Amino acid sequence: MSISKNQLKTITSLSQKKYRQKYKLFIAEGVKVVNELLNSSFKIDTLFATDDFKTDISSDKIIRISDKELQKISNLKTPNKVLGLFMIPDEKPLQKNGLSIALDAINDPGNLGTIIRLCDWFGVTQLLCSRETVDCYNQKVVQASMGSLTRISIKYVDLKMYLIETKLPIFIADMDGENVYKSTLPKEAILVMGNEANGVSDELKTLIKNKISIPRFGETQETESLNVATATAILLSEFKRSY
Amino acid sequence: MSISKNQLKTITSLSQKKYRQKYKLFIAEGVKVVNELLNSSFKIDTLFATDDFKTDISSDKIIRISDKELQKISNLKTPNKVLGLFMIPDEKPLQKNGLSIALDAINDPGNLGTIIRLCDWFGVTQLLCSRETVDCYNQKVVQASMGSLTRISIKYVDLKMYLIETKLPIFIADMDGENVYKSTLPKEAILVMGNEANGVSDELKTLIKNKISIPRFGETQETESLNVATATAILLSEFKRSY
Repeated sequence: MSISKNQLKTITSLSQKKYRQKYKLFIAEGVKVVNELLNSSFKIDTLFATDDFKTDISSDKIIRISDKELQKISNLKTPNKVLGLFMIPDEKPLQKNGLSIALDAINDPGNLGTIIRLCDWFGVTQLLCSRETVDCYNQKVVQASMGSLTRISIKYVDLKMYLIETKLPIFIADMDGENVYKSTLPKEAILVMGNEANGVSDELKTLIKNKISIPRFGETQETESLNVATATAILLSEFKRSY
Repeated sequence: MSISKNQLKTITSLSQKKYRQKYKLFIAEGVKVVNELLNSSFKIDTLFATDDFKTDISSDKIIRISDKELQKISNLKTPNKVLGLFMIPDEKPLQKNGLSIALDAINDPGNLGTIIRLCDWFGVTQLLCSRETVDCYNQKVVQASMGSLTRISIKYVDLKMYLIETKLPIFIADMDGENVYKSTLPKEAILVMGNEANGVSDELKTLIKNKISIPRFGETQETESLNVATATAILLSEFKRSY
């Protein structure tokens, strides 16, 4: 068997968000990530796999292809046996309690992927994203999140409206905020992390009083700010360490 | 003016560690990173810059080139006005006190770059690397460390011997270690972080008693381990937060 022209066209189109939304499909690649998705509640549409990819899923979902064909459709430097098309699940209902992370216009797929993994590690089950944030079904996000994608409820919302309406306390990560090591952090809250270059938007900063920062210990003032994924790691650790 | 064949050959060769060591030169690119290096104790060898790169360094160090030529020598997706050859400085003498990070065979240049930035942020002035760790003058490390490279003393050592000889307490990041939130962490110590896939080598693990871990709060046991740079961020924060 091999890949039809139509299938090739679909696969290629899925690098664009509008086609992912149209077909309600996204791409995941490589044995590890594909197997994690197959073992989750996510539903498979089609697997394109070379003969050495072993799986027990129904054979009508698998199209066996050559290494050359895989090379052709793969977006990885080193294709690894399988490329899967999975269905984008419906968004879960909003959770109104617990600890959530909210992202204000995160651009970099690698950062979003890392933050999804962090949520999974720290038991944060809900991730809110402003509509300007990179799509979580972007393939680079899928690969970087390593299966954690299947365990986190990710919702794209009008972040300003959401934050106005919530009853939970809100904390913004901000360079000029209070020293996080000296702050009292509640168990239930929303932690807002901002864009890589500009931080949290001024609009949200005006709206929200609680601002927290990770103090700089280095002597020079020239040190670049911490990367957003790194800062999220440290702040999540602070929210969770005492509970 | 333009690039001579010999210069082109030198620039190309610097993607390999053996030539960086032979010529004692490394490459940095882009306005921001190059300016940080120019404003540091690092010494410039030659800048290859387009006319719109403004600088006050001596003109005999600058070769003005066209956008096309820059494109040819650049390793960035979007070349940004300048590529500089800088001299690799002599290693500084070992510091025997304070908090140091030691890396056991870190492979990924992006991870090393992020860890260098973290050291800078948290005031860790010495980074020890096992000889199997990726070279810190690898261009991807230089770009990812964003100038922090100039403020951290990085030393490649026989890590096992070093750890046997040091008088400082040593802590190893290990999945099976003691909960870091419940550990007493001294102000002066060496924190050992391990390889991306395998963690710290068994040899070192046998040698060193103190093992610390970041507890997993998520319910499922399937969560991937934390990325090494993310874990370093959290552990450094723990070492520093009470001082």
